[in-house]
Amino acid sequence: MDDDDGWDDTAVTDERKRARVGGAVAQSADLDSFETVDAERHDVGDDDVGFDLHYCGICHTDLHFVQNDMHSTQYPLCPGHELAGVVTSVGKNVTKFKVGDKVGVGCMVDSCLSCKNCAIDEEQYCDNGMTMTYGSQTTHGRAGPNGKQTMGGYSTKMVVNERFAIKLPDSAPLDKTAPLLCAGITLYDPIKAFGVKPGMRVGVAGVGGLGMMGIKIAAALGADVTAISRCHAKEELAKSFGAKHYVAMSDEASVAAAAASLDLILDTVSACHDSDPYAKMLDKRGTLCMLGLQLTPVAVNATEFVFTRKQVTGSLIGGIARTQEMIDFCCSRDIYPDIEVIDVTKVTTALKALVNGNDAGVRYVIDCKTIQ
Amino acid sequence: MDDDDGWDDTAVTDERKRARVGGAVAQSADLDSFETVDAERHDVGDDDVGFDLHYCGICHTDLHFVQNDMHSTQYPLCPGHELAGVVTSVGKNVTKFKVGDKVGVGCMVDSCLSCKNCAIDEEQYCDNGMTMTYGSQTTHGRAGPNGKQTMGGYSTKMVVNERFAIKLPDSAPLDKTAPLLCAGITLYDPIKAFGVKPGMRVGVAGVGGLGMMGIKIAAALGADVTAISRCHAKEELAKSFGAKHYVAMSDEASVAAAAASLDLILDTVSACHDSDPYAKMLDKRGTLCMLGLQLTPVAVNATEFVFTRKQVTGSLIGGIARTQEMIDFCCSRDIYPDIEVIDVTKVTTALKALVNGNDAGVRYVIDCKTIQ
Repeated sequence: MDDDDGWDDTAVTDERKRARVGGAVAQSADLDSFETVDAERHDVGDDDVGFDLHYCGICHTDLHFVQNDMHSTQYPLCPGHELAGVVTSVGKNVTKFKVGDKVGVGCMVDSCLSCKNCAIDEEQYCDNGMTMTYGSQTTHGRAGPNGKQTMGGYSTKMVVNERFAIKLPDSAPLDKTAPLLCAGITLYDPIKAFGVKPGMRVGVAGVGGLGMMGIKIAAALGADVTAISRCHAKEELAKSFGAKHYVAMSDEASVAAAAASLDLILDTVSACHDSDPYAKMLDKRGTLCMLGLQLTPVAVNATEFVFTRKQVTGSLIGGIARTQEMIDFCCSRDIYPDIEVIDVTKVTTALKALVNGNDAGVRYVIDCKTIQ
Repeated sequence: MDDDDGWDDTAVTDERKRARVGGAVAQSADLDSFETVDAERHDVGDDDVGFDLHYCGICHTDLHFVQNDMHSTQYPLCPGHELAGVVTSVGKNVTKFKVGDKVGVGCMVDSCLSCKNCAIDEEQYCDNGMTMTYGSQTTHGRAGPNGKQTMGGYSTKMVVNERFAIKLPDSAPLDKTAPLLCAGITLYDPIKAFGVKPGMRVGVAGVGGLGMMGIKIAAALGADVTAISRCHAKEELAKSFGAKHYVAMSDEASVAAAAASLDLILDTVSACHDSDPYAKMLDKRGTLCMLGLQLTPVAVNATEFVFTRKQVTGSLIGGIARTQEMIDFCCSRDIYPDIEVIDVTKVTTALKALVNGNDAGVRYVIDCKTIQ
């Protein structure tokens, strides 16, 4: 393996059973509370893949968790659910991976695998609760001993059950591939579920880490893409991603011109916002799909929805099979996010940029070798 | 024709070109303002069907229009969009009907027939605006001279373009068939659109004129039906319609027991209400379909929708082809609403019963021969 990313892969091919791991953890809801700590992963079991983490993307959800927006965070918290690395050990039952393979992990590391949602490969909607990659209690037995809090990808090593590991192509650049594991699948899954195809009029609200993936994937599928943002600042950027049209919500004429012009809006905005101006951009039978975690109720104009059969729904990442499909799709077409690789010391700065919305249209990705 | 309904059909088989018509019209938003008046229908044109109205159902929408809830009502207003009668004359191009046939008209009498929604037989979502059976301005040329306000079925005679007339089977009882033209299709269309089938768990909120049709049609298709109402008062009634389960919203234990138990809720409640308790009854990927015209925004829990891919949508009556399909389905299976036939003098009383929600689970139907 020689992908010129500064990692010495040859040194990590020996099997390590209980790896020491460095992790960047938040000690409280204060974004300045990150510390680098020494921790431990569970053993590489018979069905597990152990890997060295090369890169981990920073997602807006990390911010929600660190800030305890859902009132469920337990500290210390090691966030990160966009993990890309290289396999260093495999359990004896593992068939999909061998040492040296590129591997990814997204937002979940376990689910019950027996409910009706797991049965249709939608483990993210597991009736017994998926185990998230971080901040979740282990429950189903495949993510280490039960009752422990999972530890995410702001770290140096990972152990994951093969069932929840994603194969990354040898040619995949690990830094740009990492964010696909959340930002990519979060857009790809609804794009497939709502049947995006050539000519379909797809709006993508929010031109950030998620939005740019929505624009790129929908455009790659031949959709007629409209980027929607607060002001005109990101117009050129959005068009460089593949958007044909642009709506600035602060520009009334721009909004009015887009009335009833879209079949689907993928709304990646996490900040709470009024859905009505977006709904007005939908044509009849159009769908507003919320992807960001808005923490206050969204008001829907019931009478308008009756007269137009518009719908509002939400979507959460995607199942493991579809995540693999997304990786194969994006990597084969060279569809990657625009990223900025940062040292772990810049985590707080990056999260604050997300708070302020001045992330400049890039996905921040932690270079994990900077974690000691 | 001898259906023993008290009408002398033999007397009305001569062609009448510009029929005088008696109508019951509201003179203002006051429900007591109904007067019986003399009026005129437009000529029976080459593509038109003229018929004597035998029965017209009373719909909650009539109440919204009379009370000017949508701020668009022009008085005098003759409501009624559940019309059933017998053909008295046909234009020379008419092929589907002959004098003496039973005929129905629902909520619309014209649309552009050239937009993409009309092209897929969803004239109710016509991009150029369907012409409603009453309270609408004629626009597209098939419902009489343009620029006139349409006059509904609280009257004695009707003229309709064949394209918007529904064939009623000879065996159909006109009094019970009339309400199918709105209450029936309003439920049948989403039931078909959302793929109701044997075993599907369908909730029907509101056990009134619409709700009873939802329960009966969904049960006839083999669905596992849950009726949802304010209190336990309508439990026996709902079960007699075919509901297997019953939820009383005022009974916390009843609501809690229904958590995540439904695939689809057809929400017929017109009064403004919180959608959240209904959404909680939906299983993942479940759909809350609003059918009543709630006049204030409905709040949606965005985060819950993201984590469950639930959706909220609305649905408006159905297209002409599907209305015909619904009539054929219901009449062949003897699926009719429970009705109470009233004299036209009782219109105000009936509308007030709808206001107060004490309609006792029947659809009121005006006996049009009582209109002078």
